[in-house]
Amino acid sequence: MSEVAPFYIPTLGDMYAARERIAPHVHVTPVLTSRMLNELTGAELFFKCENLQKAGAFKARGASNAVFSLSDEQAARGVATHSSGNHGTCLSYAASRRGIPCTVVMPSTAPQAKKDAVRGYGARIVESEPSTSSREAVFAEVVASTGAEFVHPYNDWRVIAGQATCSAELIEQVEGLDAVVAPIGGGGMVSGTCLTLSNLAPNVKIYAAEPLNADDAARSFRAGRIIADDAPVTVADGLKVPLKELTWHFVRNHVTDILTATEEEIVDAMKLIWKRMKIVMEPSSAVPLATIIKNRDLFAGKRVGLIITGGNVDLDKLPWN
Amino acid sequence: MSEVAPFYIPTLGDMYAARERIAPHVHVTPVLTSRMLNELTGAELFFKCENLQKAGAFKARGASNAVFSLSDEQAARGVATHSSGNHGTCLSYAASRRGIPCTVVMPSTAPQAKKDAVRGYGARIVESEPSTSSREAVFAEVVASTGAEFVHPYNDWRVIAGQATCSAELIEQVEGLDAVVAPIGGGGMVSGTCLTLSNLAPNVKIYAAEPLNADDAARSFRAGRIIADDAPVTVADGLKVPLKELTWHFVRNHVTDILTATEEEIVDAMKLIWKRMKIVMEPSSAVPLATIIKNRDLFAGKRVGLIITGGNVDLDKLPWN
Repeated sequence: MSEVAPFYIPTLGDMYAARERIAPHVHVTPVLTSRMLNELTGAELFFKCENLQKAGAFKARGASNAVFSLSDEQAARGVATHSSGNHGTCLSYAASRRGIPCTVVMPSTAPQAKKDAVRGYGARIVESEPSTSSREAVFAEVVASTGAEFVHPYNDWRVIAGQATCSAELIEQVEGLDAVVAPIGGGGMVSGTCLTLSNLAPNVKIYAAEPLNADDAARSFRAGRIIADDAPVTVADGLKVPLKELTWHFVRNHVTDILTATEEEIVDAMKLIWKRMKIVMEPSSAVPLATIIKNRDLFAGKRVGLIITGGNVDLDKLPWN
Repeated sequence: MSEVAPFYIPTLGDMYAARERIAPHVHVTPVLTSRMLNELTGAELFFKCENLQKAGAFKARGASNAVFSLSDEQAARGVATHSSGNHGTCLSYAASRRGIPCTVVMPSTAPQAKKDAVRGYGARIVESEPSTSSREAVFAEVVASTGAEFVHPYNDWRVIAGQATCSAELIEQVEGLDAVVAPIGGGGMVSGTCLTLSNLAPNVKIYAAEPLNADDAARSFRAGRIIADDAPVTVADGLKVPLKELTWHFVRNHVTDILTATEEEIVDAMKLIWKRMKIVMEPSSAVPLATIIKNRDLFAGKRVGLIITGGNVDLDKLPWN
């Protein structure tokens, strides 16, 4: 489709349009606080709870924006993506809200719980082998046979404009933020955060938080070019994917720094949030708190927003069991 | 102390006084909803989230009311209780807010996590043997040596008046409720619910929810007298204790019915709430949803409040692991 050129950079206007478009389909999620975690870090922390978002993740925002910006003709052919995580579930959710077909290509090895979540909202799953080449071949076949619109998990301006609505809410909910810390995988949430804050709250510093075991974004940031790793291993399974052109644009231009945390620090932070805040969230969502605990001097005395990106965790396989 | 006669029945005025007294020390907890759980049950469910309460349980209400209604002279001698559960933690919390001593008698066999929670707010723990006779002897010695005020976990009018503030909030947060379902152990939360609703919303039916494995309250209700079991075994470990005179008064006079659920039904409901609502709560708090799922015809089409009583669960020993 002509208006989705690969390098179109979404604007603040696209964020506002997204916000209006997706309002009937997503929650304005609450911001929670914890006195105990404030005492622990010396900072004032504000947790933006996208684990309480529709379909359990912020990706409902971007997926809904993409699905509801399609023309009727495009929509009739449906949408498709490849994802074994929250984007597949959230695209399935958004498509079900519009009543259009959705196909998700997933590796045959994906956990049953993730397949169930995608099917739960009505999408069709087409399985590929675990390799990238098989996934790409299967996906090309799906698009060729259906004419479905490809909605990339993050390298898509409609998706980024949708994710950008999250921090627009956050700065309305919390006054005088000094910084926002968001997990980074492919960079969709961070890019959306950059889009909104660089325009509406340019004094708020933006930090990305990444597992040390999958620190390709941090290394890209220091090298000044995209570095992609092959199959990193981390408990924060939403953060394994590499940056792409569009997200690299935002990261390079608007992020203050990319901080990393070890697997143990991530699991400890996750458990601390579950125990103290009584919310169920994913390992990926614990990386911001892990980096704040680790970099006390950077955040002490500051008002800091943290994005809790999602809550779709397999309760039968918790990382501390 | 003269004004705490064993059979003094707290009034609506006591609830209002409690509400004002404890306001600086407890949260007005949020009410959450879930479209998926509404679809599952055919009812409109409103979850009153006391797992998000200070110290992680509704018992912060009653404990704070008891602690802050003491005279300065009484307060100087401190408070004491016997509890291996949330009441000990919450009394410790309330005492720390007033800056007075607190002693909790716990069996030596109590889990380390529970001891840590009590000590976390500054209380002193005195250990007894696991038997009732040892506990009573040790407790009598504590009171004799300190002059501390005994705050019973539930058979205390100040505690019941404090718990009664929970449903006062609920009926302000949710209009037109048809029923409220609360877990029942000793009956403190249910009694507080009865106190408030029988006065302010007498058309709202009150159901108590109990593990089948610890169904002494249900059998008491049918028999018309208190039946106490010896050491029932259930995953809902907050609900093992028997009714006492004061709570029996409220249960007998104001409860519509007491419904039970099996261990498996409780664990399934708990997991469903964690998975769908993304909140961490105790097995005891899942019993209301378990009974609503089981008694569909009773609740379908109704607006039903559920009390999520607490969130202090041992993350290393989840009941489905």
